[in-house]
Amino acid sequence: MKFMEERILRDGQVRPGNILKVDSFLNHQLDVELLNQVGQAFYDRFGDRGITRIMTVEASGIAIACITAQYFKVPVVFAKKAKSKNLDGDLYTSVAHSFTYDRDFTVTLAKKFLHDDDCVLLVDDFMANGKAMNALLDICHQAGARIGGIGITIEKGFQGGGDALRDQGYDVLSLAVVDEMTDEGGITFRPGT
Amino acid sequence: MKFMEERILRDGQVRPGNILKVDSFLNHQLDVELLNQVGQAFYDRFGDRGITRIMTVEASGIAIACITAQYFKVPVVFAKKAKSKNLDGDLYTSVAHSFTYDRDFTVTLAKKFLHDDDCVLLVDDFMANGKAMNALLDICHQAGARIGGIGITIEKGFQGGGDALRDQGYDVLSLAVVDEMTDEGGITFRPGT
Repeated sequence: MKFMEERILRDGQVRPGNILKVDSFLNHQLDVELLNQVGQAFYDRFGDRGITRIMTVEASGIAIACITAQYFKVPVVFAKKAKSKNLDGDLYTSVAHSFTYDRDFTVTLAKKFLHDDDCVLLVDDFMANGKAMNALLDICHQAGARIGGIGITIEKGFQGGGDALRDQGYDVLSLAVVDEMTDEGGITFRPGT
Repeated sequence: MKFMEERILRDGQVRPGNILKVDSFLNHQLDVELLNQVGQAFYDRFGDRGITRIMTVEASGIAIACITAQYFKVPVVFAKKAKSKNLDGDLYTSVAHSFTYDRDFTVTLAKKFLHDDDCVLLVDDFMANGKAMNALLDICHQAGARIGGIGITIEKGFQGGGDALRDQGYDVLSLAVVDEMTDEGGITFRPGT
């Protein structure tokens, strides 16, 4: 069994409504040793792709991106979910829907931080329907950047986002793919991934 | 001159309205090597305080907290700025005002991640009027946790938040204190801090 699956079984909690709580190690409290295992796993898979930049979207993706970047020795860029007065100049924008917050949001990235000679590793803590990741991919395409790979710590396989990206030809590594959750707390992981 | 001051002079941009843009290395694109210098500096100052937890508030504080936590070998907890359906159970809450977004927001932390036997290092990328930090301190006091120190990468000294905390007896380490910015782009750092 993979380390992320073991950790989910040990410390994750299944809640009705297909909610998987992993807030004790991944997105509220952060186990930095575990994040290093994540970074190492992403490096093992994507280390030879010529990655020039690790990209994610705020907020909890930042933790994974920063630790992963230590293995790749490249900068992180994180897309923002709201326009602040500190974001100015030319921006890439794309619209995504948050499953967690149940609303649409605009994802923005300053154009100066992504170029057509970049090869990007996209990372995030969760992938459900893939809308946030699709917004990041849209921004990469606007920039003309290449996609070196997609690294996800936990994929909710039953929501289809990861498989849709695989069908489009992206190399998606998810460290645990949850194919089923029951209201009684059961979790079924996808074998062999 | 300290490394953070040098980096601000090299890559920061002063904008009218007392805005200091450091988005090329600290809060949009992230220089992870620089973040490691930050983590090391925080560890040099606070490494002997018995820190059990690094605490920050989303979003860009997460980057500094995670890298710093590698030096202290303790978990990170980050307070959230909005209530999502994944946050439930008992919560500590406090209200802060964002200078960047010019609005009030509620900061929340699950009670299970902070206890009265914790000694907390609070970190953030910026301190201006200190409202966000005061919200984190308020949450620590609600939990009965001790404050081992406060680590800030860039303090806007002229907005008073850092000095108010020092007057209250907190040990605040800011890696650069900007005491003045001019509309022409000039920056004056506080000497000897």
